[in-house]
Amino acid sequence: MKRINLDHAATTSLDPSVLQEMSKAFALPGNPSALHNSGREARAMLERARSKVAALLDVLPGEVYFTSGGTESDNWALRCIARDDGQQIAVSAIEHHAVLHTAEWLKKQGVPIAILPVQPGGTVDFSLLKETLAGNVAMVSVMTANNETGVIQPVEEIGLLCHEKGILFHTDAVQAVGALQAKALCAHADLVSLSGHKFYGPKGIGVLVIRRHVKLTRFMHGGAQERGLRAGTENIPGAVGFAAAFALAESLREAETERIAKLRDRFESQLFAALPGLRRNGEGARLPGHSNLCFPVRDGRALLMRLDMAGIDASAGSACASGSTEPSHVLLAMGLSREEAQASLRFSLGRGTTEDDIDEAALRIIRVVQSM
Amino acid sequence: MKRINLDHAATTSLDPSVLQEMSKAFALPGNPSALHNSGREARAMLERARSKVAALLDVLPGEVYFTSGGTESDNWALRCIARDDGQQIAVSAIEHHAVLHTAEWLKKQGVPIAILPVQPGGTVDFSLLKETLAGNVAMVSVMTANNETGVIQPVEEIGLLCHEKGILFHTDAVQAVGALQAKALCAHADLVSLSGHKFYGPKGIGVLVIRRHVKLTRFMHGGAQERGLRAGTENIPGAVGFAAAFALAESLREAETERIAKLRDRFESQLFAALPGLRRNGEGARLPGHSNLCFPVRDGRALLMRLDMAGIDASAGSACASGSTEPSHVLLAMGLSREEAQASLRFSLGRGTTEDDIDEAALRIIRVVQSM
Repeated sequence: MKRINLDHAATTSLDPSVLQEMSKAFALPGNPSALHNSGREARAMLERARSKVAALLDVLPGEVYFTSGGTESDNWALRCIARDDGQQIAVSAIEHHAVLHTAEWLKKQGVPIAILPVQPGGTVDFSLLKETLAGNVAMVSVMTANNETGVIQPVEEIGLLCHEKGILFHTDAVQAVGALQAKALCAHADLVSLSGHKFYGPKGIGVLVIRRHVKLTRFMHGGAQERGLRAGTENIPGAVGFAAAFALAESLREAETERIAKLRDRFESQLFAALPGLRRNGEGARLPGHSNLCFPVRDGRALLMRLDMAGIDASAGSACASGSTEPSHVLLAMGLSREEAQASLRFSLGRGTTEDDIDEAALRIIRVVQSM
Repeated sequence: MKRINLDHAATTSLDPSVLQEMSKAFALPGNPSALHNSGREARAMLERARSKVAALLDVLPGEVYFTSGGTESDNWALRCIARDDGQQIAVSAIEHHAVLHTAEWLKKQGVPIAILPVQPGGTVDFSLLKETLAGNVAMVSVMTANNETGVIQPVEEIGLLCHEKGILFHTDAVQAVGALQAKALCAHADLVSLSGHKFYGPKGIGVLVIRRHVKLTRFMHGGAQERGLRAGTENIPGAVGFAAAFALAESLREAETERIAKLRDRFESQLFAALPGLRRNGEGARLPGHSNLCFPVRDGRALLMRLDMAGIDASAGSACASGSTEPSHVLLAMGLSREEAQASLRFSLGRGTTEDDIDEAALRIIRVVQSM
């Protein structure tokens, strides 16, 4: 039985052409901090990767900081932002745990944290956001698109609103690369988190874009790498792979988003036609490959296991929280009951997904749900 | 002109056989946190890598935590250790900046920091260490072998001394892998930092060994990866590469340390015979590939540049600090004057270094120094 991967939002495998570009970097003998020819070669390769990422994002190379991934980028942005005593950090209730758990930790350290509620459709509640922003807020963090529902957040409006009030805006855009225009990702944000493994790039490499006017202190102490702001010997193969995968994702974006959204809609139509009581979580603009569905079953975890046995990779909530038996915090924040949240699964399509995959997956899912 | 790499302590290129082992991991579609077959495959590969590292170190797999590198491991160990109010953290004056700058940052946060002086030979001063340990100390951090001089620290004695007093002992063993016995690295320490790129493994991956009895809180917040202690999607290719490179380094260790130490001694004999006034920095047991020399020149930086032009990669201090014009903090701590420290260079041999390289390098160095 052919396994069908409908869990591309959790991670993606490395594109072979990206690995090809990384191979030169693996063989480099020099440390980019070294003051000799091999060091300069390594430095040049790193800076070419940085410039490529910067050009894609329409920011300056000096605004691109390489990190170990989206989680580090989020931790860094929230924990190291300049902030007056008593000033709040506001984060949406549907953020990735890298933001939410960092905010919870900050709260324990005495930092005032505001949690921004979302509407039933899955977007941040604007009127409540405005109320929060009327207070003493240093930074707002709202993700560009949610990793569980795929719902795209109104980051342009949020960014403009923040900037009217002199509040910094951080956005975790980890799930958005390859689906939304690269140049738009940093257009209205002061800090932007990205992660290579979400778009067929390497694991263990991410980016935090820090716009020039932002005052951020070090998160990782040590050497003077990354203009003195992020210590640790630079992961040049990672940076090269990040840049190559990002460029590839952007070049394929228009064609792929159209193709994948069509497949996703076809997938949902087939399920909705066969399964009365099925509901979709999330309204309005979504990422093209995401489908978060509430099934007419009692136990979503059991459904997930049976789908696994039927050769389908799907997810309950995000992979990062999947060890937990708690229902998705994203779906609860959208107003679903615990039972509804626990009966919900995320399917996410990707570059390798074909029409045959979709038809076969829908068939198998329908069969499994009807048997339950 | 053939370039001769005598800067292996700064970084090493990835061994081709290690890249070969990583290739399967690059192609994995699953996230190890996912609850399906592809996720379990990814998880199994990650845990095999962890078990391999644990077996080499003679610790439990559950004591091996993957990080983004030595810098993160050091930051984590120092910043997140359980500590009563007023309890000191003691670090040696010759630690890597990942430890020293983290300690400086902690000091600014109000944590009492003790700096342990070293003797002129480059090892921690034992009688002063004992004085410090008589106080209220939570943790001591002394590196296994210094990255600039190669001088091996008496970590067994320091560990025993700490444990007599119930003090935790952290050691940055980043520079020691492949030179000292793997099983010895964690034998007397409670926390041990390692970094893949120092032993022909991948960049962007490290380990912090946290022995079972140690209470360490999270440094990176987010998902429940690494038994809930280190968030972020696991870098499986990195972990697989780390394990493969570590196993290779350990299997080559006896033959390579003998071969390299002979070459290093041959290198030093040639220089000492030709250059009156040359002195070696560091006494006693050293890593086999390290040679830190104080030249009879006024300006070590100029010497470094001229060696670069003569096709020799060497280093002034560590690569991580080489952007700075300050003399090495390690050499200053050993009692060298600023002038002596600035006239000192580090040469470090590696797996690819041959006798011809050494003879040719010595010839070129002698010629350059004599011309200055």
